[in-house]
Amino acid sequence: MREVLYLDDLAVGRKFVTARVTLTLEGCKAFASEFDPQPFHLDDAAARRSVFGRLAASGWYTASLSMRLLVEGDMTIAGGLIGLGAELAWPRPTYPGDTLHVETEVLAIRVSESKPDRGIATVRNTTLNQHGEAVQTAVVRMLVPRRPAA
Amino acid sequence: MREVLYLDDLAVGRKFVTARVTLTLEGCKAFASEFDPQPFHLDDAAARRSVFGRLAASGWYTASLSMRLLVEGDMTIAGGLIGLGAELAWPRPTYPGDTLHVETEVLAIRVSESKPDRGIATVRNTTLNQHGEAVQTAVVRMLVPRRPAA
Repeated sequence: MREVLYLDDLAVGRKFVTARVTLTLEGCKAFASEFDPQPFHLDDAAARRSVFGRLAASGWYTASLSMRLLVEGDMTIAGGLIGLGAELAWPRPTYPGDTLHVETEVLAIRVSESKPDRGIATVRNTTLNQHGEAVQTAVVRMLVPRRPAA
Repeated sequence: MREVLYLDDLAVGRKFVTARVTLTLEGCKAFASEFDPQPFHLDDAAARRSVFGRLAASGWYTASLSMRLLVEGDMTIAGGLIGLGAELAWPRPTYPGDTLHVETEVLAIRVSESKPDRGIATVRNTTLNQHGEAVQTAVVRMLVPRRPAA
């Protein structure tokens, strides 16, 4: 049974770390075929002529895999991980063979003025590759319920 | 043969509109199973007890489908659509049966100081549902090459 976290449990500075996932060539191509069918995500020769230098994963694949790591991780917010928005950056591409994990830090907590049973937690989710390099940062505003009165 | 657009072609205020895609229940569930396996994206009964009220698509599915619409659209940037980062907001959920399209407006153009053969175009991609309501806004910084000297 996993602990259920309410807004009251998310102090600023609290950290979470997910498990890891390794990108496969097949996974990168399958995602790109469906959602981001650009040559540098699908074909190695085309990718070599692009700014990526070799076949790179779609940034949206990195984002989607990061979401899965978070959902399966230990930031078990009551009611689920519900994002209202995110400030995303992709400082480096990801490539087949990369092993990614996500590190989270709680940046801010705010109780809703109009709905005092909930609030907004702002967290920074940093997706790192096997070299410890950030491949994605996502500062996310999440909807988080407050702990119900006993 | 589609026109190839360079930074020089992207005046502030220029607009683009994509084709449309309709979300299916199967597509929403398949994406959620792989990338965002939370009950309100997978199970209608669980979704009815959530803030969504009924089975809703993952925001990352909305983002990924929006990317496909953009790739298949007429914003045919030379070298492809390469995002460096994005400010994402999901003002409303998307649901199976929704029909989405993306409207783009160029917000800013900046030539790179260190690499004068390229620059950054900032665009706002608004994903709208069949009621004309914004379900996602993405202010994206894109890497765009300048037109090569003749």
